[in-house]
Amino acid sequence: MHAQNQSLLDALNACIAACEHCATACLQEDDVKMMARCISLDRDCADVCALTARLVARGSEHAAHLLRECAEVCKACGDECAQHTHMPHCQACAEACRRCEEACRQGLQAA
Amino acid sequence: MHAQNQSLLDALNACIAACEHCATACLQEDDVKMMARCISLDRDCADVCALTARLVARGSEHAAHLLRECAEVCKACGDECAQHTHMPHCQACAEACRRCEEACRQGLQAA
Amino acid sequence: MHAQNQSLLDALNACIAACEHCATACLQEDDVKMMARCISLDRDCADVCALTARLVARGSEHAAHLLRECAEVCKACGDECAQHTHMPHCQACAEACRRCEEACRQGLQAA
Amino acid sequence: MHAQNQSLLDALNACIAACEHCATACLQEDDVKMMARCISLDRDCADVCALTARLVARGSEHAAHLLRECAEVCKACGDECAQHTHMPHCQACAEACRRCEEACRQGLQAA
Repeated sequence: MHAQNQSLLDALNACIAACEHCATACLQEDDVKMMARCISLDRDCADVCALTARLVARGSEHAAHLLRECAEVCKACGDECAQHTHMPHCQACAEACRRCEEACRQGLQAA
Repeated sequence: MHAQNQSLLDALNACIAACEHCATACLQEDDVKMMARCISLDRDCADVCALTARLVARGSEHAAHLLRECAEVCKACGDECAQHTHMPHCQACAEACRRCEEACRQGLQAA
Repeated sequence: MHAQNQSLLDALNACIAACEHCATACLQEDDVKMMARCISLDRDCADVCALTARLVARGSEHAAHLLRECAEVCKACGDECAQHTHMPHCQACAEACRRCEEACRQGLQAA
Repeated sequence: MHAQNQSLLDALNACIAACEHCATACLQEDDVKMMARCISLDRDCADVCALTARLVARGSEHAAHLLRECAEVCKACGDECAQHTHMPHCQACAEACRRCEEACRQGLQAA
């Protein structure tokens, strides 16, 4: 595994874990309704990151297309999470999404 | 593909779709908080069914273990959904979970 | 679930099962080396179809992007499988990929 | 995320990447037939680890059952890979599987 790919996988895996944790924590908030869009995007983002990580790890010729889509989903999820300024799980998720989006875009340039 | 496996795959795929649809619909309810456990179990159930379907389709030697666990998760998710008697998406999901649990147990006996 | 989405999910699920079955059968052929690219594409195609099915079932706003990518991967996998004219599992997989590609493109037009 | 869970997730993610890389490298070997069982187990192991990581990250009540199954699949895959002593990708995968199996068993004791 090249060092660059490992760093991309680390960002993807951190984003998956942050999205899963954020969705679970959102479901335990008093006002779950306010978190509905955040939970929806967490689901999508974790799933798209998970597939992207698999394709990157196996050196798939289709990895580049997923990296582009993954960056978009990370941006959407991170933007939503960033708005929930009082919730540590959303702030942590926003940061993980932002780093993952950046790692995906760097991965695209290298591909 | 044997007919029995196809019928098991159909039950698993129907359960995945019902759980995904149920989670999305729960997130659009007025009282999302009441649906929090349902959403959590929908996530687990869809994910476990999805892995089980893959292992069954590929004829994996590890499919049997997943069938047992899948039946348990389907039961837990179906029991929760069944309690939300006024919500059609929960009733549909409860029925899909019940059928999938039964199909998994039949698959276990055949294995 | 709209009838059109159900038909799309059916095509995706049939393609996943055909790819998984094809990969397993390829690994049991006498000349596995000749099947290496087929196995690789089976892995990618099954994984991309699986994510696409999840996003379609949950009504994700990101489903359309995955449908486009999924059609591409189905085409690549189907083209490879179609070349192995003496292997029933490859012929079945090529047909499932062709139908799934078509269903994804129809899904895109409807989106 | 507790430190213990992070260490478990790290072991699961390292195992997924090692299995994916090993399967791809096995498919490029001259004697692919000799690697057929290794490739099959790599597929199962990566898939089971991926689901387990998701359930652990979201704090699912079903994580413990998957940890038990995951440890079994890691053991099977690691034992197979360990036999291919001349192939660096198999040796790396055997080591990642062994560490992941151990992390899963420790996670079970903590659960």
